[in-house]
Amino acid sequence: MPDCALVLAGGKGARMKSELPKPMFEILGEPMLEWVLSACERAEITEICVVKGYNAEVIDSYLEHRDGNKCDTVLQKERMGTGHAVMMAREWLSGKLESSSDPNVLILCGDAPFIDEKTISESRAVHRKGGNAVTIITAKVDNPKGYGRIVKKDGNILGIVEETDLTDRQRDISEINSGAMWFSIKALLYALEEIKPNNSQNEYYLTDSIHILSQAGYTVGSYISENEQVVLGANDRKGLLRLNDIARKNIIERHLDDGVEFTCIDGVEVGRKVRLSPGVKILQGTILKGDVTIGKGSVIGVNTILENCSVGKNCVLNSVQAYDSVICDNVTAGPFVRIRPGSIIENGAKIGNFVEVKNSTIGEKTAIAHLTYVGDSDVGAEVNFGCGVVTVNYDGKNKYRTTIEDGAFIGCNTNLVAPVRIGKKAYTAAGSTITGDVPDGALAIERGSTYIKDNYSDKKLKK
Amino acid sequence: MPDCALVLAGGKGARMKSELPKPMFEILGEPMLEWVLSACERAEITEICVVKGYNAEVIDSYLEHRDGNKCDTVLQKERMGTGHAVMMAREWLSGKLESSSDPNVLILCGDAPFIDEKTISESRAVHRKGGNAVTIITAKVDNPKGYGRIVKKDGNILGIVEETDLTDRQRDISEINSGAMWFSIKALLYALEEIKPNNSQNEYYLTDSIHILSQAGYTVGSYISENEQVVLGANDRKGLLRLNDIARKNIIERHLDDGVEFTCIDGVEVGRKVRLSPGVKILQGTILKGDVTIGKGSVIGVNTILENCSVGKNCVLNSVQAYDSVICDNVTAGPFVRIRPGSIIENGAKIGNFVEVKNSTIGEKTAIAHLTYVGDSDVGAEVNFGCGVVTVNYDGKNKYRTTIEDGAFIGCNTNLVAPVRIGKKAYTAAGSTITGDVPDGALAIERGSTYIKDNYSDKKLKK
Amino acid sequence: MPDCALVLAGGKGARMKSELPKPMFEILGEPMLEWVLSACERAEITEICVVKGYNAEVIDSYLEHRDGNKCDTVLQKERMGTGHAVMMAREWLSGKLESSSDPNVLILCGDAPFIDEKTISESRAVHRKGGNAVTIITAKVDNPKGYGRIVKKDGNILGIVEETDLTDRQRDISEINSGAMWFSIKALLYALEEIKPNNSQNEYYLTDSIHILSQAGYTVGSYISENEQVVLGANDRKGLLRLNDIARKNIIERHLDDGVEFTCIDGVEVGRKVRLSPGVKILQGTILKGDVTIGKGSVIGVNTILENCSVGKNCVLNSVQAYDSVICDNVTAGPFVRIRPGSIIENGAKIGNFVEVKNSTIGEKTAIAHLTYVGDSDVGAEVNFGCGVVTVNYDGKNKYRTTIEDGAFIGCNTNLVAPVRIGKKAYTAAGSTITGDVPDGALAIERGSTYIKDNYSDKKLKK
Repeated sequence: MPDCALVLAGGKGARMKSELPKPMFEILGEPMLEWVLSACERAEITEICVVKGYNAEVIDSYLEHRDGNKCDTVLQKERMGTGHAVMMAREWLSGKLESSSDPNVLILCGDAPFIDEKTISESRAVHRKGGNAVTIITAKVDNPKGYGRIVKKDGNILGIVEETDLTDRQRDISEINSGAMWFSIKALLYALEEIKPNNSQNEYYLTDSIHILSQAGYTVGSYISENEQVVLGANDRKGLLRLNDIARKNIIERHLDDGVEFTCIDGVEVGRKVRLSPGVKILQGTILKGDVTIGKGSVIGVNTILENCSVGKNCVLNSVQAYDSVICDNVTAGPFVRIRPGSIIENGAKIGNFVEVKNSTIGEKTAIAHLTYVGDSDVGAEVNFGCGVVTVNYDGKNKYRTTIEDGAFIGCNTNLVAPVRIGKKAYTAAGSTITGDVPDGALAIERGSTYIKDNYSDKKLKK
Repeated sequence: MPDCALVLAGGKGARMKSELPKPMFEILGEPMLEWVLSACERAEITEICVVKGYNAEVIDSYLEHRDGNKCDTVLQKERMGTGHAVMMAREWLSGKLESSSDPNVLILCGDAPFIDEKTISESRAVHRKGGNAVTIITAKVDNPKGYGRIVKKDGNILGIVEETDLTDRQRDISEINSGAMWFSIKALLYALEEIKPNNSQNEYYLTDSIHILSQAGYTVGSYISENEQVVLGANDRKGLLRLNDIARKNIIERHLDDGVEFTCIDGVEVGRKVRLSPGVKILQGTILKGDVTIGKGSVIGVNTILENCSVGKNCVLNSVQAYDSVICDNVTAGPFVRIRPGSIIENGAKIGNFVEVKNSTIGEKTAIAHLTYVGDSDVGAEVNFGCGVVTVNYDGKNKYRTTIEDGAFIGCNTNLVAPVRIGKKAYTAAGSTITGDVPDGALAIERGSTYIKDNYSDKKLKK
Repeated sequence: MPDCALVLAGGKGARMKSELPKPMFEILGEPMLEWVLSACERAEITEICVVKGYNAEVIDSYLEHRDGNKCDTVLQKERMGTGHAVMMAREWLSGKLESSSDPNVLILCGDAPFIDEKTISESRAVHRKGGNAVTIITAKVDNPKGYGRIVKKDGNILGIVEETDLTDRQRDISEINSGAMWFSIKALLYALEEIKPNNSQNEYYLTDSIHILSQAGYTVGSYISENEQVVLGANDRKGLLRLNDIARKNIIERHLDDGVEFTCIDGVEVGRKVRLSPGVKILQGTILKGDVTIGKGSVIGVNTILENCSVGKNCVLNSVQAYDSVICDNVTAGPFVRIRPGSIIENGAKIGNFVEVKNSTIGEKTAIAHLTYVGDSDVGAEVNFGCGVVTVNYDGKNKYRTTIEDGAFIGCNTNLVAPVRIGKKAYTAAGSTITGDVPDGALAIERGSTYIKDNYSDKKLKK
């Protein structure tokens, strides 16, 4: 399959009042451009060229760091219409002719994020089967106002007519242009020669190619997507909020279909790549970002943020924020917990209120109930942390690790000054600062002198 | 009043993708079955039989542990329609004939949670007054699509026609079957003999009894409920979310009518049994579950969860989670506070940020301002806790109580190793670990040796 | 410009079930009366008289403490209609005749909060230009039901007809009375003499003045506001919730237009006076109250509450509550942070989880990472706080300040007993209680005796 895609991403988005190129505005935490690129990749289009323009370096930098296939780019220095944008890729398109006799290209808008794999695949099939020079991806909508209408005669496409040029009869046409189109690259290169900026904006319109190819006897086809949302884009912050809201509800609906329970979706945001097992329950205010998986029977929320985390079965996470970590089965955490990157919370561990875990392994059935910081630590199974324990991992210059073996009991308000090892079933007494290793089964205790001064409050009041 | 109810709860809910029987799915934290049972109980129907089927042991277990009257159950091993479900209770129904000459039974769907006391009571009155053999509880709705229509001629009910069997004229009938019906038990037992599985599903339909009884000369009546929501049920997770949303807004609306202030209801969830005084203010993200009462002038939220708690007047709870506890008047708590079961927070106490209270009494005007854990403690009035105080209630084997008398002052980062008693107006010095009782008015202090090493940072940097 | 305004604020709001006068119910945290008064002030009307009635002392107290110009008040002891309310201000109105030959007064409802500056200014221009005796501020709405209709003949206003008195033809009139009107004070004083309580309520209706003045040959005009919301008021808690929701969305929409990013507005509340730079991102559950400004590039939320705070550029505040404080540029805070009044967080400082700052200055690039309380402190630049540090600022009688100089390193679980000074680049060892000053560059350490008891756990288990 030698097909490739060209993504138009040169736009500015002036009404966004930002220096970000328009396709870089985010839907559920990912640029619209990413939504488009990954839809291509899911449809097995891997050769992609991005036409960049406004603040192109932002797009360069994004493409450099993204996962997935590397994309080529071409620069559109001046923005002179969609046809002009495609012209910038002429060389890239021509190159495709070398490896295939009649290659096709899918042209997509980088700021229409809801293009989907099925639409791409099925439109490609239609395009190929019909031997089309161009296949417009369209949608039928209830309210076509503002979109280019697909004008047909006897089933043949005559062209795309923009809102301002519509006749009264055309105004009611419900089939509209999504902006996405398949082209035979040969036909496209021909059409690019013919597109002229004969319009009030002095711009080169890619949509003119339809009429040009049709006139020249090429086959022009269309594919009506079942997904009306393929046409949607955002020109301002309100539009962007609307797209976010649509995306948010689409994804939640998909998980509802899969048997996930949501009882109130206020504030809930589930990212594109999140995988939830049937029977998972997501409570209000919960945000799942990036690569998250959650196992059966787990209850997540309220107000829980997970980013790049895997959560096992039957966990209960209440008001937890966790990042780049692994939470195994039967873990309860919260309320008010933060788990920072590099942590592994093993089966049956309990993390209580006002606890921070960072870059540490917490063993099975270990309990960290309250007001504790465990950082850079390797903690065994069935360890009990008292309240107020601190792993002192930083001396102002370097960071060190703390090791706590199985079954240890760490007294309240203990400082464990790393590097330090607390042995198996060892104890530390409340209020101790432990600067050296504690042998297995031993008790370490630090105590000062204790005095009782009688009648202290009377004297204090007299002062 | 010898009336009784039969609740059909055998269904599976395949589209829920869960092993829970359908009536066990929850609306605002309570199974739909519970909503139905408690509506019966509020309408003073106390003899209830539940027809269980799919994963019956889940229903058995729930009924065993629920508050309220004990319910009988019968098992419907195979699911062969609503008529079949009622047949399973034939013996139970016959038993009712012994204690009354003409008893009635209300048949309800266990997965239609919005049946209400008024509908039950008024339909019962209609049923009795008309001497009806059967009284269908109906509702008039704008969009009857999908529901069984009530077909009448000259005011008499001819039968219930399902969506698939509707004539064009019947399609516009707006009166629909809620699924709930009153029967004379005698008439019902007669009808059950006559219901045949003569349909494509080979099922016994309870609705066939209408035609059967009508044909046999019995009086068939109907009662149109003002509450359109009596017809609502859920077949999938989307439907369940919708029912939750409806329930959520219904209850909030009821409290608005009672003079409770809500300025933004996003994320707000108020359980069925919650009692709020006029003038209470509930902020966004607040969840009130189970048996909660809140007194006049209290402001609850944001993001506050109360479960089985009583809160007095003029309290301010900001980002608090409290469970099975009593909070008296003029208490302020939060932000970021957890109050665990068995706690009593007395008048005018202040609980500040990152404080956990568990199974303790906190006396009047006592202040626990920050980063403190008070567990298994009896704390008097006007006690002042410094920051970082820990009641050390667990020694790895047993839990012990801490007693703090009126007016005591607990220094910052103090460990109170239980069992221990801090006397009236006694002081503990910051950083002390207190392992023995402190007399009234005394100061207890634990101090180690203190050194100052000059030029430490220079040396450290040189290393 | 000698124009003045009379705000009718005597109403009770019985259905609110509260003792608050109706205009004192709040929209986004401010009384409806405040919305009206400040709209007047923005339109440069500074002489305002408030007609108070029900629980007048609540309004007196509010007016006394509010910012902005002082308002006069008159008391309407009995509530006998809007005309009667205006009669109470007869003397105040007459007084205006002394300083101007033909002064005008704007009469406003104290419980219609969405009157806006533009409507006031433009209607004043219409009123003056037309030499009108009265100019009714109206709006054209899709659903006029319940509102007084503006009845015109040949473009001239005949009167305002209330819902109950409408003819069938009048029922469809879409232009309705907002309740706000400009009067020539002379004409108003004339009309007040003529208004009679000839209606079923025995009340004096101000709207009768239209007919009276028209009959007497005065010019009656109207101004149709573009802002349909000028007509909105609330009679019950449901209505108040609705107004809050409208206000909430209006303000968010305004910020969207200005280039602020919102991806999910659930639970988000932005007050009237908040100023946000383009490119600021506001996440769900965020509440901004009072006088808040936020600089470019800052990300605020989730669940962040800021009240009277200024936040600089490129800050990230996650689950923070901050009050009456200044947060400079590049500050990161959260999750779970509370910043109490009087704090200044300087550029590049980092405030981590479970940290409370109160009435303190935190210097540039200082890090307070976890579980720490900094109160009444002056902290320099590049200070590092370990976990669990407490500034012991209260001895049970007085509060004292803590000074920490640049580059100091405060060990974990350190108590700094104020008044105390930690010198430049000084260190304190973990677990120390520091009661005296620490010189620049020195290390202060407090340690007790440390013991290791071997085989402790074996013995403990045997017990």
